[in-house]
Amino acid sequence: MGYSVSILGASGYTGAELVRLIATHPELTIKGLSADRKAGQPMGAVFPHLRHLDLPDLQKIEDLDLASVDLVFCALPHATSQSVIKNLPSHVKVVDLSADFRLRDLAAYETWYGKPHSAPDLQQTAIYGLTEFYREQIAQARLVAGTGCNAATGQYALRPLIQAGVIDLDEIIIDLKAAVSGAGRSLKENLLHAELSEGYHAYAAGGTHRHLGEFDQEFSLIAGREVKVQFTPHLIPANRGILATVYVKGAADQIHAALASAYEAEPFLQVLPMGELPSTRHIRGSNFCHLGVVADRLPGRAVVIAALDNLTKGSSGQALQNANLMLGIEETAGLMLAPVFP
Amino acid sequence: MGYSVSILGASGYTGAELVRLIATHPELTIKGLSADRKAGQPMGAVFPHLRHLDLPDLQKIEDLDLASVDLVFCALPHATSQSVIKNLPSHVKVVDLSADFRLRDLAAYETWYGKPHSAPDLQQTAIYGLTEFYREQIAQARLVAGTGCNAATGQYALRPLIQAGVIDLDEIIIDLKAAVSGAGRSLKENLLHAELSEGYHAYAAGGTHRHLGEFDQEFSLIAGREVKVQFTPHLIPANRGILATVYVKGAADQIHAALASAYEAEPFLQVLPMGELPSTRHIRGSNFCHLGVVADRLPGRAVVIAALDNLTKGSSGQALQNANLMLGIEETAGLMLAPVFP
Amino acid sequence: MGYSVSILGASGYTGAELVRLIATHPELTIKGLSADRKAGQPMGAVFPHLRHLDLPDLQKIEDLDLASVDLVFCALPHATSQSVIKNLPSHVKVVDLSADFRLRDLAAYETWYGKPHSAPDLQQTAIYGLTEFYREQIAQARLVAGTGCNAATGQYALRPLIQAGVIDLDEIIIDLKAAVSGAGRSLKENLLHAELSEGYHAYAAGGTHRHLGEFDQEFSLIAGREVKVQFTPHLIPANRGILATVYVKGAADQIHAALASAYEAEPFLQVLPMGELPSTRHIRGSNFCHLGVVADRLPGRAVVIAALDNLTKGSSGQALQNANLMLGIEETAGLMLAPVFP
Amino acid sequence: MGYSVSILGASGYTGAELVRLIATHPELTIKGLSADRKAGQPMGAVFPHLRHLDLPDLQKIEDLDLASVDLVFCALPHATSQSVIKNLPSHVKVVDLSADFRLRDLAAYETWYGKPHSAPDLQQTAIYGLTEFYREQIAQARLVAGTGCNAATGQYALRPLIQAGVIDLDEIIIDLKAAVSGAGRSLKENLLHAELSEGYHAYAAGGTHRHLGEFDQEFSLIAGREVKVQFTPHLIPANRGILATVYVKGAADQIHAALASAYEAEPFLQVLPMGELPSTRHIRGSNFCHLGVVADRLPGRAVVIAALDNLTKGSSGQALQNANLMLGIEETAGLMLAPVFP
Repeated sequence: MGYSVSILGASGYTGAELVRLIATHPELTIKGLSADRKAGQPMGAVFPHLRHLDLPDLQKIEDLDLASVDLVFCALPHATSQSVIKNLPSHVKVVDLSADFRLRDLAAYETWYGKPHSAPDLQQTAIYGLTEFYREQIAQARLVAGTGCNAATGQYALRPLIQAGVIDLDEIIIDLKAAVSGAGRSLKENLLHAELSEGYHAYAAGGTHRHLGEFDQEFSLIAGREVKVQFTPHLIPANRGILATVYVKGAADQIHAALASAYEAEPFLQVLPMGELPSTRHIRGSNFCHLGVVADRLPGRAVVIAALDNLTKGSSGQALQNANLMLGIEETAGLMLAPVFP
Repeated sequence: MGYSVSILGASGYTGAELVRLIATHPELTIKGLSADRKAGQPMGAVFPHLRHLDLPDLQKIEDLDLASVDLVFCALPHATSQSVIKNLPSHVKVVDLSADFRLRDLAAYETWYGKPHSAPDLQQTAIYGLTEFYREQIAQARLVAGTGCNAATGQYALRPLIQAGVIDLDEIIIDLKAAVSGAGRSLKENLLHAELSEGYHAYAAGGTHRHLGEFDQEFSLIAGREVKVQFTPHLIPANRGILATVYVKGAADQIHAALASAYEAEPFLQVLPMGELPSTRHIRGSNFCHLGVVADRLPGRAVVIAALDNLTKGSSGQALQNANLMLGIEETAGLMLAPVFP
Repeated sequence: MGYSVSILGASGYTGAELVRLIATHPELTIKGLSADRKAGQPMGAVFPHLRHLDLPDLQKIEDLDLASVDLVFCALPHATSQSVIKNLPSHVKVVDLSADFRLRDLAAYETWYGKPHSAPDLQQTAIYGLTEFYREQIAQARLVAGTGCNAATGQYALRPLIQAGVIDLDEIIIDLKAAVSGAGRSLKENLLHAELSEGYHAYAAGGTHRHLGEFDQEFSLIAGREVKVQFTPHLIPANRGILATVYVKGAADQIHAALASAYEAEPFLQVLPMGELPSTRHIRGSNFCHLGVVADRLPGRAVVIAALDNLTKGSSGQALQNANLMLGIEETAGLMLAPVFP
Repeated sequence: MGYSVSILGASGYTGAELVRLIATHPELTIKGLSADRKAGQPMGAVFPHLRHLDLPDLQKIEDLDLASVDLVFCALPHATSQSVIKNLPSHVKVVDLSADFRLRDLAAYETWYGKPHSAPDLQQTAIYGLTEFYREQIAQARLVAGTGCNAATGQYALRPLIQAGVIDLDEIIIDLKAAVSGAGRSLKENLLHAELSEGYHAYAAGGTHRHLGEFDQEFSLIAGREVKVQFTPHLIPANRGILATVYVKGAADQIHAALASAYEAEPFLQVLPMGELPSTRHIRGSNFCHLGVVADRLPGRAVVIAALDNLTKGSSGQALQNANLMLGIEETAGLMLAPVFP
């Protein structure tokens, strides 16, 4: 059997990562690849690491036959996604990797993204794509909204703790260290090797990063009250990886137990023994997320640390995991690749 | 169905890379893992990136039941390999990743490795493991000697040219740029991040690198006369990758044609269109080797550049490819993982 | 005129950094260099980047004529320092770069360093070497104890805030990102390029890092009450730099004003305009520390970020700044080197 | 006393490097800084690592008072330089860091740069800025043309050998490894951290790199006959450094002697003992060039390796060294900064 998929926005890193993962997926075939400015080029010219694959050339979206595929991955820039997805045939399932359908509240969307949503009806049907927590709904969904990569990392560390009521909801700080591929293939001075290598720094500090919209939405939903975290992302001289250091007030053993229990049956979420700490080197290129807990010397405080690969578990791996569910394929298909170390 | 294997010397990078590749191999099961100093530890403690796998704990070699497996990967240090392999049950197939069985000539072995060979009879039965050129013999072999990673890279660039007689055999220079994982997990000052990052340099210059023994043996064998190349390896601040820039005298179009023709049907060897040049970023974590050819402005000269991942195609991927052949499995099984970029 | 100095423990990174800085210092001459295991070697053999300098060969400490120099920099390992310094001629001034004399309280020393102090009398005379806050005492001191590099970074961010009473003393979190040269030239697996590049992680989490001893001592002293911070250091794939992200409760404008006012006349401490954030790329190789403040979206919370070079302002640059004061030389002599970017 | 200078094109890496070096120069004062698109901004906003310096704001060139300075450093893009320099007051000395005045032959200029020279008269008066070989002429010059950074590295390795007649002039190969800052602050995909880190490759292969124009000009001039070398540059994941591995035919001892003799009195050119090899880590941030020679196992062949920092000795350090000569200041003023390691 098998299913056919197309990838819109295939010339970015998340598009390339989808192709990489699907390359050894047992049941998916790539039928179409779009990239506006690079239409007409072979994928192997834009991403020579994929040259061994037999892939369709890049095309403009309007030249793809999207009605004939089972599912579309939409890796387009924020805001572009909405207008494209609302015109897709309604029998085609969609996994969106942009930020366009992550926030259910239209006002929150406008606050964080600076303009009104252009497909509000569609947004109400979208399921938030954090697989482990929306599994049943995702399996039934037509449209799944991939989460922010930082947002995913912080939620893996915190959701079970909020759910279990083992931490103080007013005292949560997420200090996050993100590798540079999360910024995409954009041409900015601070993403140049000569600037970033040996240079690291905080950005979007003070509560201005858009992924806070997701934290606010999800954590408040779980808690049944408003929960607002403090969040400082940092850009680190590495290509892949997110490490979230989460400061909480609560009993470390209860915290560890809540995580271990919540993720006991999860194939990709690995809770380390109490006191062991994850490293980005141990999840690189994979769909795994490692989580560690340590008690602080200050009574009643603990640190939870989560590590995942922003391009895999943080975006394209998550997207594929969701697509598997939506298509009725085994959830882990194509995703059991072991991390690449060193 | 399926076959069982054990890995000796599993606490080094090539051992870990074997486990990574076998993790998604459809027909191999790991029965035993050895590591002398780390015996008793779970593999996931030594290599936390493998913690999601259900693997046997590390043991001392003498505690493994090696008679019950179909094939042993031997990733032990040079010189140790010979004494271990000569004591393995003769019905067990062996892929050796050390340098111990690469050189057929006992005198050459002693010259390059500084002491007499301790298993000379066994050495005569070993097949040199450059898969694409010894495929039939490897399929019949009991013992296959994995090649040096630098030696493999240079040979992929040069063998078809020597075979086709399109280059001057007395004017071959290999300038090679190797990433640091090729040096293994050894604790040396020049392998520290603080020393290597931002610092690159030549080593073993002047014709003293041991992989020259392999070049001499193989190139002379193909040419039917003595061929000695000039070879300077450099250590580059990167984790994975080898880029060999090979300077030859000959006609670039004939050189390109010789490579393209020789590798036309090869699943892992990709000859780029004339004038295109490979990069290590495009083969990272994969079993692919990219090859490019460019004519020089000086008439009658050309540059051939080959890029591969030292841990995959340069050692553990090659070892698995050979094991597949030896066990009668499809040659590419477990090896079609797409490169990891970025 | 001019003064003569010797450096004990010159084969480590801090020793080499001292030589680098003194190389263009107008008034200091290096008379002796010690390195136990490398005694007899020229400094240029151990550190080829210093080969252009006319330096004495490395010797064993006992072979140096320490009575004839004006000042000794002691860059020996922790615990070794105490026994060496107590035997130095009393007319020789000493700047110690180890942890041996940082903690005034003998019990605290034993708690953090695991054994009793062997030179308790001497310890009582040592001045804590955070120049800007102990300037007058340092100028009069015979023995100055260089601070921990992490400890210096955190203190630059926090001391004026505690002094000014503008933050909640019970809610201070320091999330610190340290480059690898801070770990010294020690041969450990996690410091290898192949492990650290692309791999970052927390260490000594939960309040176990020894620099907490310094935070506790100094912050409590300023506050006149016990102050205990939460502190998580991370190891980042970079060679030089420390970035401390400090979470505090207080009014951002008061916090910024307190820093700006405290450091107004300081040559090396640069407070950025409100909302601007420092990066390690902008202080590399220099004695400068950049500090930024940003208000959080959560009322009453702010983030203070400090960046400095661990080898310069964090250790050897600080040591030279203190030596200048102790010898009556201009405080900035030899230290106005601009940061190296890119 | 002292002299005043202006820097045109101060928003690029070479402009910033000039400011860094002049920051501790005893006799130069920066009077003006130009940057077209960033005119009006403080230098510390464009390069925050220079924020501690008291510098003029960036201005448009036409707004600078260039008649009142002693010397202008022109760090403008290629082709722009010529039109600007021909309009400078004739009493102002000029050090040009672009490629505009490097090639004396107008036809060669047009060949390598693709258009006719727009200031041919001026070009005839320019002195080629490889200090050690044009020292007397530079001291008398009004206009000095800074060399290409790759061109400088190759020439330091080869000029004395050609001069001394100890190598075969028809068999010279330069395999060069360049760090990324040599490409400037330009926004190109292959200069992004995510692409370059862990990815290295050849570029401008086959004899198409423009610095070949300089090699051809200078080597032919020394030899008194046409000399054409083979040259392959590679882009390496590092910020600073050039390592040139030069393959020559000749006697290694004669080669070493020729270099050692030629550079015996040079303050910045360090010839290592026979067999020792340089590393970019040992010249970072400095004006030094390290050179090593090793004999090959193949009789009559040798390898010469030269390492320097592309931004310092390869461009801005060289420019300052030349400016010192032109102004009658000590040649090494401001340039004795020790390399930054690690």
